[in-house]
Amino acid sequence: MKKITVHASTEYDILIEKGILSTCGNIIKEKISAQKIAVITDDTVDRLYGKVVGKSIREAGFDVVKFVFPHGETSKCADTLVNIYDFLCKNSITRTDCLVALGGGVVGDITGFAAATFLRGMNFVQIPTTLLAQVDSSVGGKTAIDLKGGKNLVGAFKQPVCVICDTDVLKTLTPEIFSDGMGEVIKYGMIRDAKLFELIAKNDQKTIWTDLEDIIATCISIKRDVVEADEFDTGERMILNYGHTLGHAIESYYHYETYSHGSAVAVGMCMMAEKTCEPETVKKLKSCVKAYNLPTSVPADIKELVPLCGKDKKRAASQLRFIVCKTIGKAEIHTMSFDSFSIWMES
Amino acid sequence: MKKITVHASTEYDILIEKGILSTCGNIIKEKISAQKIAVITDDTVDRLYGKVVGKSIREAGFDVVKFVFPHGETSKCADTLVNIYDFLCKNSITRTDCLVALGGGVVGDITGFAAATFLRGMNFVQIPTTLLAQVDSSVGGKTAIDLKGGKNLVGAFKQPVCVICDTDVLKTLTPEIFSDGMGEVIKYGMIRDAKLFELIAKNDQKTIWTDLEDIIATCISIKRDVVEADEFDTGERMILNYGHTLGHAIESYYHYETYSHGSAVAVGMCMMAEKTCEPETVKKLKSCVKAYNLPTSVPADIKELVPLCGKDKKRAASQLRFIVCKTIGKAEIHTMSFDSFSIWMES
Repeated sequence: MKKITVHASTEYDILIEKGILSTCGNIIKEKISAQKIAVITDDTVDRLYGKVVGKSIREAGFDVVKFVFPHGETSKCADTLVNIYDFLCKNSITRTDCLVALGGGVVGDITGFAAATFLRGMNFVQIPTTLLAQVDSSVGGKTAIDLKGGKNLVGAFKQPVCVICDTDVLKTLTPEIFSDGMGEVIKYGMIRDAKLFELIAKNDQKTIWTDLEDIIATCISIKRDVVEADEFDTGERMILNYGHTLGHAIESYYHYETYSHGSAVAVGMCMMAEKTCEPETVKKLKSCVKAYNLPTSVPADIKELVPLCGKDKKRAASQLRFIVCKTIGKAEIHTMSFDSFSIWMES
Repeated sequence: MKKITVHASTEYDILIEKGILSTCGNIIKEKISAQKIAVITDDTVDRLYGKVVGKSIREAGFDVVKFVFPHGETSKCADTLVNIYDFLCKNSITRTDCLVALGGGVVGDITGFAAATFLRGMNFVQIPTTLLAQVDSSVGGKTAIDLKGGKNLVGAFKQPVCVICDTDVLKTLTPEIFSDGMGEVIKYGMIRDAKLFELIAKNDQKTIWTDLEDIIATCISIKRDVVEADEFDTGERMILNYGHTLGHAIESYYHYETYSHGSAVAVGMCMMAEKTCEPETVKKLKSCVKAYNLPTSVPADIKELVPLCGKDKKRAASQLRFIVCKTIGKAEIHTMSFDSFSIWMES
């Protein structure tokens, strides 16, 4: 078992191991003294892992209740959140009980936000079941829901009491959802770790499995280091947003339907690299992106994407901050007026 | 002008002065560098003070937008919250902008929660316009909305950048809403300050005005001291809940319609005093409560109220914690099993 300890406003462990899911109850028991556990999950994940997780938690001595909502990003909304609140309320969940987020990013984000706000805050455990959630949402304490006006516009910073990553569950992901996670994995190589990038680049979607546990642990460690230096996202942490300013615009332009987050980030990285890197670096990045069945461009014209960058909540008034990696493994924060950014990107 | 500085996770000032409302724009300007200010208020307060506040903020150089919702506790719900979020989103409010909560407890609670969660947190200023909001919500950083299942069940801890209390605005309160605030004012005397209690007790609703600025400042100072010792409400801060365990039950039993918060707390204090105080103390408390047109009892049978105490979110599993003041000015935290509490109260 790999263990990564995160020192945020509270300290917690991320545990990574094949098959760890079936022992999650005892792991949780070591961390907290709750009476009841409310498992929050979506219908897809519930069908696959609801039973094994419920059984393990029950056998560890907790009372278990479960709330299941329809899978997909459209569920990450205020309606689902209010349904979760009402469910917790009806089941008399108290401040000393605990939520378990069993699922991908949507489940983790909305459950984390519920845990941050129900009764003004209670414990929660994350069991991320997608590659994206394991490498991205498991560290950082960012929780959120979407609004009609944009993604992740409402949220809170909330650290879990522990994160349990079972790499076995990644085998049940569709190729598309696996690729989705690889977008972020490649990003970690780009912003911080040329060696990690090379390891990813020498593999492809078929061969990566043997190195996957190491890769996940490395990604999590990078994110841990960045987040520890800037828990509340006021500076350095911005570098995690490489590919995201344009990526979010792409997701938004296509109404979160055509491109997954990882695909949009992959395109965002490639577009930014084309503006700022040597041709050789652009080629390397694009080749790596393609090896994981991710796109390097989108049909939408840059003129249509740029105005949507303004919807990113990192935009401080008329200034836009975004990330540039001139070389693989090294990220810089750039600040530009929104108008200059438009002219530059469209040139 | 009286100034009380609160040292919470962030430091901020509470400013108390007659007529301060018309200069609020410049006060806010000294504190923050926002571009836009979104004023959140209800229709009653907007009619009275919307213009003067808007003008002052605009003249201080901010862009101003305003969201007005129907007055009353029923507005403190998820629907209003989502409408506020959508409004902020449509008006392109960014993280570096600022919200202003102009109104009573409902406005302060929901606006504070919106500020805690929109874009994962932004600045807000409180301008409490009721006595209750000035002495209670202005310190402590508790923000919340209600659920169908209970009051304040969803919320966050969020400190304002400053609080502006204009005692002139209290003159436009109905006698009922003024009394509502007096419930909490009496509570401060009971839990911490026998001298304050005597000052309140020697006055009544008609004569209190000359001492009001001092009384408000004393109440706020008491709450400040208690909250500073326990910002996240894990111990000592519980004493602020004197009268509230039964008070919340009364509010809930009557569906938040018959008894105001202050009235319910007044009854809660009297009921608890009858169980724990010398007859002389009970008499003093009841006489003071009556002088401010607050009730000392409710028709509901104690047997019907006690089960509703379990809905209080301070209830840690099967244990109930509640506050006892055996003498005026001194509060103790008691813990009892829920069953023992039922038997004791019903005896």
